[in-house]
Amino acid sequence: MPEISGTTRVYALLGDPITQVRAPGLLNPVLARRGTDAVLIPMRVAPADFERVVHGLGQVANLHGLLVTVPHKAAALALADRATDRARLAGSANALRREPDGTWSADTFDGDGFVRGLIAVGQHPRDRRVCVVGAGGAGSAVAVALLDAGVAELRLADTNPDRLETLRERLSVAYPGRVAAAVRPQLADADLAVNATPLGLHPGDPLPFAVTGLPAGSLVADIIMSPAETALLREARRRGLPTHPGEPMLAHQIDSYLTFFGL
Amino acid sequence: MPEISGTTRVYALLGDPITQVRAPGLLNPVLARRGTDAVLIPMRVAPADFERVVHGLGQVANLHGLLVTVPHKAAALALADRATDRARLAGSANALRREPDGTWSADTFDGDGFVRGLIAVGQHPRDRRVCVVGAGGAGSAVAVALLDAGVAELRLADTNPDRLETLRERLSVAYPGRVAAAVRPQLADADLAVNATPLGLHPGDPLPFAVTGLPAGSLVADIIMSPAETALLREARRRGLPTHPGEPMLAHQIDSYLTFFGL
Repeated sequence: MPEISGTTRVYALLGDPITQVRAPGLLNPVLARRGTDAVLIPMRVAPADFERVVHGLGQVANLHGLLVTVPHKAAALALADRATDRARLAGSANALRREPDGTWSADTFDGDGFVRGLIAVGQHPRDRRVCVVGAGGAGSAVAVALLDAGVAELRLADTNPDRLETLRERLSVAYPGRVAAAVRPQLADADLAVNATPLGLHPGDPLPFAVTGLPAGSLVADIIMSPAETALLREARRRGLPTHPGEPMLAHQIDSYLTFFGL
Repeated sequence: MPEISGTTRVYALLGDPITQVRAPGLLNPVLARRGTDAVLIPMRVAPADFERVVHGLGQVANLHGLLVTVPHKAAALALADRATDRARLAGSANALRREPDGTWSADTFDGDGFVRGLIAVGQHPRDRRVCVVGAGGAGSAVAVALLDAGVAELRLADTNPDRLETLRERLSVAYPGRVAAAVRPQLADADLAVNATPLGLHPGDPLPFAVTGLPAGSLVADIIMSPAETALLREARRRGLPTHPGEPMLAHQIDSYLTFFGL
C-alpha cells in the first residue's frame, strides 16, 4: 500500500453500493510499487448526493480525480466540462480528472478494458454476434468498445425501453446497420452474451438472462467483479458454456487510469 | 499502510496548507498494525470552502469522521451539532465524528495531547507560569488543557486583540484568577513559553516571540510538527534553553482519536 502523508494526491472511487469495488485493491499496490505518492479511496455516495459530493470534492486541492461506478456513470458524464467522443457515445463516464482550472474532464475505460480483457484470453470479438444485456453506464461503454472492435452485430437489451431506445439511436448513427435492440435479449444465435446489469451483485438477485437460450459454445461474460463467479457464470459453467469473469475488465483499465490521471 | 478496499472506513484530515501534516503518517500504520479496516487521508481545503466540503463529505456513507487542522479548528466547532465542554471552552475542535443520524460531534485533543506530551518527558506544567502565544484553534485548546493540568498562571498572547480578549473572557469565567492576556507575550518570569501560532511552518517566517525575553531555564515549546526543529526551537537551543517539539502533541492524540472514532 502507498505511504500516505500530507503530500499525497487523493483519488476517490464513488459508487453505491461500494463494498464490492476492486479498483482500490488493484490500483493502490501499483502506485506503491511505482513509488507514486497517490492513493485511491472508496466513497459510498447515494445517487441523490452525487453532484453535491463531487462539487465538494472539487474544492479539495489535492484531490485530482475520481473514478465512478454504478450508479453514477451517466451523472459523471453529465457534470463533466468536457468528455471524449467514446464517453459521449456511451453516455457514461467512469473517470473524471480535475484540471488545474477546476474543471472536470471525463472519459470511460470500461469498454476498452472489457475488450482488452477478452483479447488477452484469445476471445477477440471481431465479426461475432454479441448480445449486451444492460444499457446503463457500463453496458453502453462496453457496447461502444465492442463496435469499435469490429463485432458483426451488437444486440442491446434492457428492461427500460426508453433507455434502450436512446442508446440504440445514438449507436445506430455512429455504427449504421450493426446495432439492434430489444427489451428481451436475443440469444438464440449469439456468439457472446454479456451481463452489464448490476444483477448478480447481491445474493438472491435473479439471473440477468437465461443461459438456456444460448447456443452451445457461446461465451458468457459478466462485468460484475464481486463475487468472482456470479450466479450467471456458475449457471453457464454448469451447462458447459465457456465463461469470462468481471475482473479482467478492471485489470485492463489500470494502465489507462494511470495515463489519464498523469500518474 | 492499511489495505484499502471497498469496505474501508475513510477518515479525512482537512487543513490548508496540508503538506506538513503528520497525522496520516502516524495513524495509518497504527490502524494497519491493529488490523483496522480504516484509512486517514489528507485534504487541502481553503477556508472559504471548508463548510461546503464538510457538507459534501457528510453525504459519503463510509466517511466516518474528520480531523481538522489550521485554519479550520474554529469553523469545525461552529458547524458541529454537539461538542464537548473543553472544545466549547477552547472555541475550537480538531476532530468531528459523523454519527449514524448524519450529525457531527466535535471534540479537541490538541490540548490534552500537548500536556500528555510534556508529562511524558517529565515536564508536568502544574504550578508553572505559562505563556501561550497564539489564541487560535490550537492555542486555545492548549490553554484549556494547561489550566486543567493546574498551571499557576496562564498568559495568553495574540496579535489580534479581539480574538485574544474573547478567549481571555471565556477562560476567566471557567478558571478565575489564573488567566491574563496581552498582545505582546509577557515572558520575563515565564517557566514555559509555547508557540501556538503557525509562524515557523514556512521558511522565512518571523519568530513568534523573542526567546531573549525568557529567563534562564525556561522551557520553549512549539506545536509545529514540520519542520521538527522550528526556527524558534533552534534559536532557543542556541541560547541554552530547553526545548519541546511539536510531534509529541500529536503522538499523544493517536489513542484519543481511536477511542473517539470507535476504531
